Amino acid sequence: MNELEKLRHSAAHVLATALLELWPDAQLAAGPPVEGGFYYDVELDHRISPQDFPAIEERMQRIIAERQPFKRIEISREEARKLGFKGRLGALSERKVPSRYKLDILESIPDNEPITLYQNGPFIDLCAGPHVEDTGMIKGFKLTHVASAYYKGDEKNPQLQRIYGTAFYTKEELEDYLNQLDQAKKRDHRKIGKELELFLIDEKIGAGLPLWLPKGAVIRRELQNFLTDELLKRGYQLVYTPHIGQLDLFRTSGHYPYYRDSQFPPILDPEELKTFESKNMSCAELANRLEKGEVEGYLLKPMNCPMHIRIFDSKPRSYRDLPIRIAEFGTVYRFEKSGELSGLTRVRGFTQDDAHIFCMESQVEGELLSCLELVKVVVQKMGLLDTKVRLGLRGEDKEKYVGNPESWKKAEEDLRKAAAQSGFDFVEEPGEAAFYGPKVDFLVKDAIGRSWQLGTVQLDYNLPSRFSLSYVGEDGHPHLPVIIHRAPFGSLERFLAILIEHFEGHFPFWLAPEQVRIIPVSDAFVNYGEKIKEILQQNHFRVNLDRKNETLGAKIRVAQLEKVPYMLIVGKKEEQMSRVSVRSAKKGNIGEMQLDHFISLITAENKERRL
Amino acid sequence: MNELEKLRHSAAHVLATALLELWPDAQLAAGPPVEGGFYYDVELDHRISPQDFPAIEERMQRIIAERQPFKRIEISREEARKLGFKGRLGALSERKVPSRYKLDILESIPDNEPITLYQNGPFIDLCAGPHVEDTGMIKGFKLTHVASAYYKGDEKNPQLQRIYGTAFYTKEELEDYLNQLDQAKKRDHRKIGKELELFLIDEKIGAGLPLWLPKGAVIRRELQNFLTDELLKRGYQLVYTPHIGQLDLFRTSGHYPYYRDSQFPPILDPEELKTFESKNMSCAELANRLEKGEVEGYLLKPMNCPMHIRIFDSKPRSYRDLPIRIAEFGTVYRFEKSGELSGLTRVRGFTQDDAHIFCMESQVEGELLSCLELVKVVVQKMGLLDTKVRLGLRGEDKEKYVGNPESWKKAEEDLRKAAAQSGFDFVEEPGEAAFYGPKVDFLVKDAIGRSWQLGTVQLDYNLPSRFSLSYVGEDGHPHLPVIIHRAPFGSLERFLAILIEHFEGHFPFWLAPEQVRIIPVSDAFVNYGEKIKEILQQNHFRVNLDRKNETLGAKIRVAQLEKVPYMLIVGKKEEQMSRVSVRSAKKGNIGEMQLDHFISLITAENKERRL
Repeated sequence: MNELEKLRHSAAHVLATALLELWPDAQLAAGPPVEGGFYYDVELDHRISPQDFPAIEERMQRIIAERQPFKRIEISREEARKLGFKGRLGALSERKVPSRYKLDILESIPDNEPITLYQNGPFIDLCAGPHVEDTGMIKGFKLTHVASAYYKGDEKNPQLQRIYGTAFYTKEELEDYLNQLDQAKKRDHRKIGKELELFLIDEKIGAGLPLWLPKGAVIRRELQNFLTDELLKRGYQLVYTPHIGQLDLFRTSGHYPYYRDSQFPPILDPEELKTFESKNMSCAELANRLEKGEVEGYLLKPMNCPMHIRIFDSKPRSYRDLPIRIAEFGTVYRFEKSGELSGLTRVRGFTQDDAHIFCMESQVEGELLSCLELVKVVVQKMGLLDTKVRLGLRGEDKEKYVGNPESWKKAEEDLRKAAAQSGFDFVEEPGEAAFYGPKVDFLVKDAIGRSWQLGTVQLDYNLPSRFSLSYVGEDGHPHLPVIIHRAPFGSLERFLAILIEHFEGHFPFWLAPEQVRIIPVSDAFVNYGEKIKEILQQNHFRVNLDRKNETLGAKIRVAQLEKVPYMLIVGKKEEQMSRVSVRSAKKGNIGEMQLDHFISLITAENKERRL
Repeated sequence: MNELEKLRHSAAHVLATALLELWPDAQLAAGPPVEGGFYYDVELDHRISPQDFPAIEERMQRIIAERQPFKRIEISREEARKLGFKGRLGALSERKVPSRYKLDILESIPDNEPITLYQNGPFIDLCAGPHVEDTGMIKGFKLTHVASAYYKGDEKNPQLQRIYGTAFYTKEELEDYLNQLDQAKKRDHRKIGKELELFLIDEKIGAGLPLWLPKGAVIRRELQNFLTDELLKRGYQLVYTPHIGQLDLFRTSGHYPYYRDSQFPPILDPEELKTFESKNMSCAELANRLEKGEVEGYLLKPMNCPMHIRIFDSKPRSYRDLPIRIAEFGTVYRFEKSGELSGLTRVRGFTQDDAHIFCMESQVEGELLSCLELVKVVVQKMGLLDTKVRLGLRGEDKEKYVGNPESWKKAEEDLRKAAAQSGFDFVEEPGEAAFYGPKVDFLVKDAIGRSWQLGTVQLDYNLPSRFSLSYVGEDGHPHLPVIIHRAPFGSLERFLAILIEHFEGHFPFWLAPEQVRIIPVSDAFVNYGEKIKEILQQNHFRVNLDRKNETLGAKIRVAQLEKVPYMLIVGKKEEQMSRVSVRSAKKGNIGEMQLDHFISLITAENKERRL
């Protein structure tokens, strides 16, 4: 438990103390620190709502002001039981009824562990600690929300009320955090995505199957063009592969049936299926035969690797051809449980910026460095300046990993060297490698300081041998290549979510679905607006003309809400002088200028893909 | 039967006559004209092979030289039977054994039809005719191949030998045709696609599921960029949609279960599937429930329309918003029987250049014209200058069609007007409309005169009401929009096949996977070649440097075989003067020039997407 968690754990006790002051009959369960704060679970007839928060917080404030010390008391299991039966655990004083949940928790503590209580003021809790010195150390706190939760997360147990809050060592940190929460709500990609009509998740098409609406599709196209340019510069070869493949392919790769639960079920051969129907075979029997490989079918691809591997293997390869870098914006399908789906960040169909690099061991370091450099170029282009790298290395139990130890050692060193050279901050995490090879994960912080995981770069010593791949080495003999799987952004859908929240919908000019809106001050200047629109379109800008019969102010407000980077206001003066008045959605009025000058400004902005 | 078919039918009789001269015991079955020629089915112990063709053709030539007249003889069914039992049908003279197949064919002639024989020289055949006057009218003929075929196409019947040939009224026509066959074989996209590594069909991934290899993917990307430019100019909005959708969506659209046989079977919800497995439900029961809509699942999309319709329906639409043109390079999956698969022209997964236009009836004509104009722009860009339009109109039985008669009448007139205005040659085909609306098909002739069907434009009065679509009209009331489905090229895979065969692999510069190859005359000039390569790459050209230690001639031959549009030969003279010697794969040596001059030439060629 780190220092902040310790504080929040203590804040949970303060919350419990306040709750018991208000409702002495409350039965408390557990009150741990969690990501972003803490909670306490409580059983109570009164239904707690945010309207109760001020009264609870007032008492918490008083308890904090009293600077009640946290006292640790070690007792025997028998004594603890006695206290529990007196109702003296998770309580301010002795009660008529036993402390139900505390007694149950007590029994779950292993025999060899000490039983400890923590006391602050009159409140005694069964608790392993640790806690801060006294309640006064909590300088900033706030209750945030209330939810219901089953005791121990088991739906056979009673339902409790879970009261959430957060706490910090300073008031400023609390304010920053609340500010961030507020910002995050405003920036929520589901909200902005709907307002700006970027994507659609339609229950009739299916949960977790996003559609890119025209405006979102512009962003995707621009992103793909940008990434394609960068890939081509680095010697990648783009391909297109089908979205289904025969089951046997995925049996060879090991994706089927091992990951059956996270995949859509197989698609059968229509002609074979008819035979099963006519023979009255049962679904269970069919499933069994599919697993055993006695029946063929297709799988909606959960990964692009088997397809790229077949391309590598479609002709003989020599060491002179390596590295071969096969890239694809490949849409894959995985079955996430419906409760786990969320906007564009957890979906069932998504498009990876995928690639597989087939190389010799001696090329691994260079390829890794190039992958890291590519990620750097892109995150910098997006202004996601705070990007970290996490190296997943082998853990203690070396038996768990395929591939020979020398290769692993070299690969881990290569990873470390590449990470150090790349200039990214990096941490090493032993035990976080995949069983088939070490890996790199990318973590970015967005404009409001939240951390997001992007994609990964993984070394693979497994698939090359499962697919019996080889290349002819300089020695004339066949050798096993190494595969590097890399999808630096993981998925375009997820990346769009990050960009929406990072930019709060104010996309850089080159990504903006609508780049320029022309706003005539009145109907009389619609023709002039039309002329400008045509000129801008000929220059390949995405431009609209607002022909609505509304006030200038109203039209500017709408363009502002729709986050169009530039508005061109045109009236009499502008028409007479072939000029435009430029307004930026972020900077306000920029001033009047010749149309040509404006075009040269935005041409540069577009071409350089400026932030 | 047209005049050419009549001639070919007569040629089949000449073939039969020659066969009987060589093998008097042969039992003949049927000998009709077919697409491109004719055949005769024959039962014979001797296994006929192309080695027998010269001997057969020699006799045919003699029979033709004899100018044997074709005599029509009408007889009674009884007389015909007698002849048959004597072995005198499909024979040169009386035989010991009855004419087995002829007798069988005789019995299948309806009672009310006349029984006719045709005689040339000694050969009498049971035949409905018609024939040319005499065998001498056949000026050009050739036997082409032999195959086996079941009598009447039924595998329960005996297997016969089918001898194919072709025939023409003039020698020149025959030569042109043989030339075309030869050309077609050389241009076969399966052959060139493999040689140039454009695409891959891999049995391990699945029959009919093509992969675009790196070089083919370059062509696809360039095609998509070109089409995207053209679509954006015309006010289309591009989207991306998932490759699966809930079954209910396709139940609403009518694609499921009606077209079940041409689709991959549904994908079940994994959680639901487990229930069926544990309840031991049979496959037949499951299929039944799926059809009835009692069980949900997903379908691999056979069409993009339901997805685009849901986008249209995702917000209220007004007449002011129409037409809305939603486009997608959408990959769809249909189940073709394995026997029907062929290269890129008949596949199970393909990418449509799809779009759906949602408009008012008054906008139909303009939209149709714009679709036709787009097709024109693209086929001209590809040099497919001979493109025809076929209008599919309603047939006699007006009951078969949905939508009101006035709309149909107007739509058919709109189609006709648009076709006339477009400048395409067009034919009208009543009865060829879909039940939901009239349509336009495009037919192109390639470089060697073969006709290919591209895509279609279809009006749809069905889906708008099935999906309860509406827009608010000028009158403030909801109205039903019309949907225009259009995929002018049908599928990118098929279009690539056409382009490969049309260009014989010599793609125009802007489409060529490798645009320039630099060939140093010796190792000493590899550095200069590298410098040029970098400059060309900075100018975004696709360029390679041939570093192989081989003769100049050998390197040029390879580049020629790989159909690289330009070779730059560099040696001492070139390096000293910063020049390059340019060789075109099609035109040979072009001459020496400054590198800058070459770059300006190819920049223009690329930008204008010249042929």
